Amino acid sequence: MIFQPYRSPSTGLPVRAVLFDTFGTVVDWRTGVAREVAVFAAAQDVALDAQAFADHWRSLYQPAMQAIRSGQRSFTKLDTLHRENLDEALRQHGINPEHVPSETLAELNKSWHRLPAWPDSVEGLAAIRRHYIVGPLSNGNTSLLLDMARNAVLPWDVIIGSDMTGTYKPLPEAYLRTAEFLDLEPGEVMLAAAHNSDLLAARAAGLATAFVARPTEHGPGQVADLHPEGDWDLEASSITELADLLGA
Amino acid sequence: MIFQPYRSPSTGLPVRAVLFDTFGTVVDWRTGVAREVAVFAAAQDVALDAQAFADHWRSLYQPAMQAIRSGQRSFTKLDTLHRENLDEALRQHGINPEHVPSETLAELNKSWHRLPAWPDSVEGLAAIRRHYIVGPLSNGNTSLLLDMARNAVLPWDVIIGSDMTGTYKPLPEAYLRTAEFLDLEPGEVMLAAAHNSDLLAARAAGLATAFVARPTEHGPGQVADLHPEGDWDLEASSITELADLLGA
Repeated sequence: MIFQPYRSPSTGLPVRAVLFDTFGTVVDWRTGVAREVAVFAAAQDVALDAQAFADHWRSLYQPAMQAIRSGQRSFTKLDTLHRENLDEALRQHGINPEHVPSETLAELNKSWHRLPAWPDSVEGLAAIRRHYIVGPLSNGNTSLLLDMARNAVLPWDVIIGSDMTGTYKPLPEAYLRTAEFLDLEPGEVMLAAAHNSDLLAARAAGLATAFVARPTEHGPGQVADLHPEGDWDLEASSITELADLLGA
Repeated sequence: MIFQPYRSPSTGLPVRAVLFDTFGTVVDWRTGVAREVAVFAAAQDVALDAQAFADHWRSLYQPAMQAIRSGQRSFTKLDTLHRENLDEALRQHGINPEHVPSETLAELNKSWHRLPAWPDSVEGLAAIRRHYIVGPLSNGNTSLLLDMARNAVLPWDVIIGSDMTGTYKPLPEAYLRTAEFLDLEPGEVMLAAAHNSDLLAARAAGLATAFVARPTEHGPGQVADLHPEGDWDLEASSITELADLLGA
């Protein structure tokens, strides 16, 4: 029996590739980063609320990319932005990064390469992969996404980092150049993401869309992205549920 | 026990990624293309020596890329070059490509996406992957290499197509930009290839090198690349043997 791929009502095309936002959708950045911040704080003998620090570090992510999206700054890979943001976050927490060995900071910066998968991610991706191309569609750079995949055993077919498209979501080129590398129409590519803003931009670029709820990405007090805020093609509470909805 | 990666005597660095030439080294292009040419000839009711046609089609590969390497033509992906070369090969065999449905030619052109692996490739790559990053370092475009990997079940960690580096081997940028996407020093990357000229260029760019003998790539009468022609770091008669030499 020949598998019939899911056909998106919004694009009218069968989906060939299901690509995933990673930070928050596939992996739990807050837990992963906080874990390594706690180890860092203990080793440096400084007082830090590890989860608050992870949130603070993450809060500098969008402004840093915005300088690039606006054209104010030339494309700079996410590892570099994370490293700059780490210095700033440390300073705002009263720690002078110049008093910390640079290898220690480089290692802490690599916590973004070692994020744990949500419990359903590996099983869900493996199921979807049986019938669709699977890969990340992330603002992470290739080496970050590759390390993440090896560490969390994410079964990607292909990794197209933001350093390959040379741009950051939610600019349309981030979605369109990714589809082009795959030699697919935008409507043959589905973005699966836990963030409504990402799905909105993907739909505007012509992609199919799936919302995957991650209500604890930002911890127990999360208020944003608890629910789908558009009529996305699919809505699921896990990647395994998304696999079922895709017939995989 | 911590695994000790192979250290290249020529680069002095431990190897972190083992990247493979694909056409000829990992997959058997001649058998794969000839098989589909034979089906095409039968369906079109034309007389074609399928293996000779495969050889002829392949012989147009280097000249087509040379126009791009020399700067005479802007970067054009390999799928497009293969398609142009197919028309030329057909004409030289007395077949007017304009008399063949374009979907049929597009399908035949995709034979390069469906090449069979050599018998040792999948097992050897899987073994190496336990301890090293594995991926192609090929002149193929990303979608070609992705289809090839899904069809032949090649267990790549990452696929960096020539459309991502925007250049063709053996230009140094093809090797150097690949290492850059991996955030590795050139000397931490090993090229494994069945072609001495590829290894020569990789070494000049600072990569570690491994020769994998494929004495029937060009059929029973092969005369080139039967033996290593440089003091490459490693020499093997299969990818499984290469895995052993790498301690994987």
